[in-house]
Amino acid sequence: RSGEMAKSTQLIDNEVFRAYATYTAIILLKMMLMSLITAYYRLTRKAFVNPEDIASFGKGDSAKKYLRTDPDVERVRRGHLNDLENIVPFVGIGLLYALSGAELSTALLHFRIFTGARILHTFAYLMPLPQPGRGLSWAVGYAVTFSMAYRVLKTVLLL
Amino acid sequence: RSGEMAKSTQLIDNEVFRAYATYTAIILLKMMLMSLITAYYRLTRKAFVNPEDIASFGKGDSAKKYLRTDPDVERVRRGHLNDLENIVPFVGIGLLYALSGAELSTALLHFRIFTGARILHTFAYLMPLPQPGRGLSWAVGYAVTFSMAYRVLKTVLLL
Amino acid sequence: RSGEMAKSTQLIDNEVFRAYATYTAIILLKMMLMSLITAYYRLTRKAFVNPEDIASFGKGDSAKKYLRTDPDVERVRRGHLNDLENIVPFVGIGLLYALSGAELSTALLHFRIFTGARILHTFAYLMPLPQPGRGLSWAVGYAVTFSMAYRVLKTVLLL
Repeated sequence: RSGEMAKSTQLIDNEVFRAYATYTAIILLKMMLMSLITAYYRLTRKAFVNPEDIASFGKGDSAKKYLRTDPDVERVRRGHLNDLENIVPFVGIGLLYALSGAELSTALLHFRIFTGARILHTFAYLMPLPQPGRGLSWAVGYAVTFSMAYRVLKTVLLL
Repeated sequence: RSGEMAKSTQLIDNEVFRAYATYTAIILLKMMLMSLITAYYRLTRKAFVNPEDIASFGKGDSAKKYLRTDPDVERVRRGHLNDLENIVPFVGIGLLYALSGAELSTALLHFRIFTGARILHTFAYLMPLPQPGRGLSWAVGYAVTFSMAYRVLKTVLLL
Repeated sequence: RSGEMAKSTQLIDNEVFRAYATYTAIILLKMMLMSLITAYYRLTRKAFVNPEDIASFGKGDSAKKYLRTDPDVERVRRGHLNDLENIVPFVGIGLLYALSGAELSTALLHFRIFTGARILHTFAYLMPLPQPGRGLSWAVGYAVTFSMAYRVLKTVLLL
């Protein structure tokens, strides 16, 4: 068993993998934050979607008015979905990239730019900033993931 | 090649990783079940979204009435999206956590509570249970993922 | 450090893992392509959702008409969400499967069928092909993921 333990800690001792783990944890926590922001807007704007969520506001038509969409809630939800669409590929491709023997400095560059771009994207979406602020921050994250995928396919291709 | 094979099986021989693999497979299968439940409600409620999906019901206005939203279908879809928003962070952060040298008993506690909470969340959403049933089950899963992320960042931080 | 580097490259030297990395990168790139197709339809159909996205079209009611939903845009978005719902389980379960000591030929069969089925699914959704084209391609990908999950649970089960 000591052999197993040694093995299991070696991956995490690899510096590129540690960098991957750090930025993946940070960006997934950022994505999770979107749930809290959605809940905050739902509660402050009183805009809910499930009948059971407004039961505490009383019964009948007086409560039903809270079953509605709100522009701020919908905006956060779009940002959250955009996170899913972009952070899922980063987490998956980033793991393969981190295991493909990338240089630490190059890997850190990729992880830092992606994480910064996605944090900017959230600010651009929620404030909102004028375009092309959101578009550019999206494109930067997209390009970083694409660059990692290119390196993975060049290194490991086995069809 | 025997060296490679030995290497590739060692990760899966690690008990914390095996526990992670078990609960990740279970919770992803649970998430996949949402697709079948959506399909079940679409077929029984006759509520579709794509014109090509109702071609077998005939042409014209008699079939077009099945292009509609249904509260039960929408409810399952919200549950499915909530799964994506919460299970993706669990799978990503849980992998890093499993590789960070966590104790088996602590890891099992995290994985079991998360999996139980998400199964409860699905029941609470689909029945539906009165609040705060769904809210609490969501919060428990969220807290477990946050706890694993904290442990990962404390162990591996390399910015 | 040379020991670490050797360790980190060994996983990627394993052929089953290389096959997993190849098909995961390809299918995640395919999913990312959905963002570009959505953007293409939004721009050509002039159908946007955020007020800041139409600022360049001028102010007032003349620009507001571009804040609308378009059937083609919504179709791509549904395909994108279906990708998330199905590719996330493949990436997660596929990783565990690749590490569970599967045979290379069996693993390649799973990865190739899944990737082919999901590419077909996208064509079936976007053209669109008559049903059951899209339904079948969805079911094939679903069954492949289920088969890998079964193998993972049979191999590693630790509850």
